[in-house]
Amino acid sequence: MRILGIDPGIAIVGFGFIDKQGHKLVPVQYGSIQTEAHTDDGLRLKQVFDALTQLIDKYKPDAVAIEKLFFNRNVTTAMTVSQARGVLMLAAVQKGLPIAEYTPLQVKQAIVGYGKAEKRQVQEMVKMFLHLTAVPKPDDVADALAVAICHAHSSALQSKLNGVTRR
Amino acid sequence: MRILGIDPGIAIVGFGFIDKQGHKLVPVQYGSIQTEAHTDDGLRLKQVFDALTQLIDKYKPDAVAIEKLFFNRNVTTAMTVSQARGVLMLAAVQKGLPIAEYTPLQVKQAIVGYGKAEKRQVQEMVKMFLHLTAVPKPDDVADALAVAICHAHSSALQSKLNGVTRR
Repeated sequence: MRILGIDPGIAIVGFGFIDKQGHKLVPVQYGSIQTEAHTDDGLRLKQVFDALTQLIDKYKPDAVAIEKLFFNRNVTTAMTVSQARGVLMLAAVQKGLPIAEYTPLQVKQAIVGYGKAEKRQVQEMVKMFLHLTAVPKPDDVADALAVAICHAHSSALQSKLNGVTRR
Repeated sequence: MRILGIDPGIAIVGFGFIDKQGHKLVPVQYGSIQTEAHTDDGLRLKQVFDALTQLIDKYKPDAVAIEKLFFNRNVTTAMTVSQARGVLMLAAVQKGLPIAEYTPLQVKQAIVGYGKAEKRQVQEMVKMFLHLTAVPKPDDVADALAVAICHAHSSALQSKLNGVTRR
């Protein structure tokens, strides 16, 4: 199963495609989509949407995992990032892909084992899980891979639970 | 000039197409796009996007005016509506349409003449400006027409200012 992990944003969108081969996780492609500040909001949304659509066409994932936003202060930022998140989800739905959503807490829990883990710890675990030689940069890329790994673990667990139920 | 006014939302999107013929404003078509609660967020975003794209194809506006969101409390609602606003803006940009954004304050100012006007007053003015026999329902439709009228007035003012500058 190929999973596309997304860390949503308008200036930078982190993305990471990973393959789940049994217990093994293999990185396929990862990076970031970036848009220029001082550009029209609408145009930036289109750039982000077009870029993700192209990536999906090229790497053909089976599922998408996207981070749920968590904001408690800056509503303006929350709204701008949510607009981008909307077009990113649309790109996935237009290709018929299922979308799973995870909070930052769930991602940390899945990757490090507890929800209050430091960003640094999450990044080191991403590097380890995927046998990378360095932590991917910028942070958004590591975050995108983290949510993809989180989904790989959750869906594995889900299959096991389904297995139990079926017995 | 044909203007499409939009009141963004995920459960209900208000839309209103109006023609600006000199000083006259003529309603062309207005109504709402509605999506079912308890449906997948991604699917609702696609429904909203597809419906607006079809409306744009059918009524071919020259410009889009969309309400800027104003939230000071419920960040979760702000984020959900913003996701929808993102795909609505994308639908307009994909058709090459310019997008103007207006705050609720600017809309009230343009329609009633002062920013603290009651919703009721705005609705009555929309009815009057467009020579309608009743206030359009639900409120989202009247709001969409209000932002379209606001843009008609603003762009008229803008043309006049440009004229002055050119002298």
